[in-house]
Amino acid sequence: MRLAEHLTSLGTETAFAVSAEAAALAAKGQKIYPFHLGDMNITTPDNVIEAAIAAMKAGKTGYCPNYGIPQLREALADDVSRSHGVKYAMENVAIQPGGKPTISKFIMALMNPGDEVLYPNPGYPIYESQIEFHGGVAVPYSYREGETNFELQLDELEASITPKTRLLVVNDLQNPMGAEATEEELARLAKLAIEHDLYVLCDEAYFDIRYEGQSKSLASLPGMQERSVILYTFSKKFAMTGWRLGASVGPKEVIDAIARLNVNDESCSNHFIQYAAIEGLQGDQSGPQKILGILKERRDTAVDILNSIDGIRCFKPNATFYLFFNCTGAMKKKGFDNSEELRKAVLKETGVSFCARMHFGRPLPGETEHYLRLAYSGIDVDQIQEGLGEFKKYVEA
Amino acid sequence: MRLAEHLTSLGTETAFAVSAEAAALAAKGQKIYPFHLGDMNITTPDNVIEAAIAAMKAGKTGYCPNYGIPQLREALADDVSRSHGVKYAMENVAIQPGGKPTISKFIMALMNPGDEVLYPNPGYPIYESQIEFHGGVAVPYSYREGETNFELQLDELEASITPKTRLLVVNDLQNPMGAEATEEELARLAKLAIEHDLYVLCDEAYFDIRYEGQSKSLASLPGMQERSVILYTFSKKFAMTGWRLGASVGPKEVIDAIARLNVNDESCSNHFIQYAAIEGLQGDQSGPQKILGILKERRDTAVDILNSIDGIRCFKPNATFYLFFNCTGAMKKKGFDNSEELRKAVLKETGVSFCARMHFGRPLPGETEHYLRLAYSGIDVDQIQEGLGEFKKYVEA
Repeated sequence: MRLAEHLTSLGTETAFAVSAEAAALAAKGQKIYPFHLGDMNITTPDNVIEAAIAAMKAGKTGYCPNYGIPQLREALADDVSRSHGVKYAMENVAIQPGGKPTISKFIMALMNPGDEVLYPNPGYPIYESQIEFHGGVAVPYSYREGETNFELQLDELEASITPKTRLLVVNDLQNPMGAEATEEELARLAKLAIEHDLYVLCDEAYFDIRYEGQSKSLASLPGMQERSVILYTFSKKFAMTGWRLGASVGPKEVIDAIARLNVNDESCSNHFIQYAAIEGLQGDQSGPQKILGILKERRDTAVDILNSIDGIRCFKPNATFYLFFNCTGAMKKKGFDNSEELRKAVLKETGVSFCARMHFGRPLPGETEHYLRLAYSGIDVDQIQEGLGEFKKYVEA
Repeated sequence: MRLAEHLTSLGTETAFAVSAEAAALAAKGQKIYPFHLGDMNITTPDNVIEAAIAAMKAGKTGYCPNYGIPQLREALADDVSRSHGVKYAMENVAIQPGGKPTISKFIMALMNPGDEVLYPNPGYPIYESQIEFHGGVAVPYSYREGETNFELQLDELEASITPKTRLLVVNDLQNPMGAEATEEELARLAKLAIEHDLYVLCDEAYFDIRYEGQSKSLASLPGMQERSVILYTFSKKFAMTGWRLGASVGPKEVIDAIARLNVNDESCSNHFIQYAAIEGLQGDQSGPQKILGILKERRDTAVDILNSIDGIRCFKPNATFYLFFNCTGAMKKKGFDNSEELRKAVLKETGVSFCARMHFGRPLPGETEHYLRLAYSGIDVDQIQEGLGEFKKYVEA
């Protein structure tokens, strides 16, 4: 079998390999504490489920427009206009079967082969994969530990810009680090994007997973709306990960191109669940509030235990449901050279399943600190306590 | 805004333009007879809907594996093994958000830029669009009117094969023509594929939309299973067009590559509707039988009226829900040069909305006959009678 040559540059989410390892151990009877995947063990709010059922029974089972149903596009344009403080209309919205499709469609709509694309590393591994698969050059920028959270390395980012740089991927409220740009950093990012005529993917998957204050989007800064495509997803806010529903929100010209990709790739997103999404946006908001309350308690529990462990330090990010904790001390104490070795040993010895730094991109030159990533979206407080208790015992033994 | 250069080679389904025209007329108060789109006005069987609701309420709302849930992959492997008479296992199945995604993923998994790909014209316009968008060379082959149906032009197809030909797209039980290869033609296609080492996309969207006898797949011929990927869809058989659920079925190595594309493009298909699909495959089969009964009555009604019209002739294909009827006489009688002009005039004068030949690919050199396409999946028998009655009056006036 001769597969296409460019498949060699198609990456994957190596975190799925961790799932497979954990599942293999579970099958042998080991108790597993699942901190490795960003799935949620919280159910979708009832009113959202009921709206899907009503739409299905009302016969919303045929095709819908490639852009999505007008009512949802309008509801989402209103919602994003409100949360971002800039005006979007229905024509700026193309519904997608998940948040992720906006990544590949943004790249297919705006990148030419050989273009350089700036992307975060550590970061969601699909950026690098899609950039390289479609013939672009993936250029990483990074974050480093600051006082209270990870900080965007803006000098480094600016120094990486060349005449070939065309696109910038920003995942503010960042996976895996929970990092968040300050207003000054956003302003500087906007300045760079405008000066160098970069188009920006604002991956805002975690925009509404925030425990205090209000998220701020790069797309809402002056001059940025016309060069930014927002990745919106219903997955996190409404605990709808397995429903696969999201949207691309941006300038009409790009949205039209993205909708033409919809025609070619999957026709449209599931019809009846779009009515559920309208209920999510416009109906009773106690569901998303309850979800945030659950997640916040988990975060506080996990951060406290992690910081009580000798050789571990962890920020308390205000957004996302991830913790990217420094394990350099613990790693050395246990005699390991990198965090992946520590991850494997912890999984084997305790059943506690994390991801390692390497699951979020190739380590960059000059990295001296080591990290593991913990997701608290799929594990209850009592299991967090029990699992991280085992982890503490292992590290401190 | 500088969109990516390759977007200029991305096509679309121009039939959606017909929908827009029809909708504009309807908005002005004109009665429309919708024969233009392959959507269905038949509801999904109740047992399938109930299975989706049960799964949703049972919390199947989180992510599922990128390949789809194992139970559905197994159920579909069993079903396709039975209908095709060759053995498929779970490892040969990757669930997709619709039938269509198999087209782009087959091309991305197996085509290198510059490769030549044989595809049917008239045919589903997405083949040509995806081949060219991803840098391939789209080489058409055709069908001509025979005694009882359209016939594949195999000499022409064979003559188009060059050392650069790498892929062959076969849509037997064909949209828009309802054409179907004979056993001899399938055997000759298999011989050509094996001799020239071609990989084959068997688009079997209409495999189960068949009124008599049993569909036969090119993939089931000796030597073909290992070089064929079947496009399977739940859309037609179960009237689930708007649910967006299908699958790629083929050799493990390609399926693994396609599942890696799933990871990159959309993570997975909607989780809970996969349980509905299992009920469709394994539960009460009266739903699909009822759907076929409805469609057959519509076909018979439409074919009889069309053949009663002066200047129109139409085959009665045994499969699909399309009629591709010859309108050369009617066109000339009404003073038009091509079928698109006739289509527009008919829509405007009578509200009867067809597609034209040009919506299924660029007309080929030497075409002397002219055609319109009628879909009877979205219109009831009484409206077929009324609408085609109007069409008859218009043509014969």
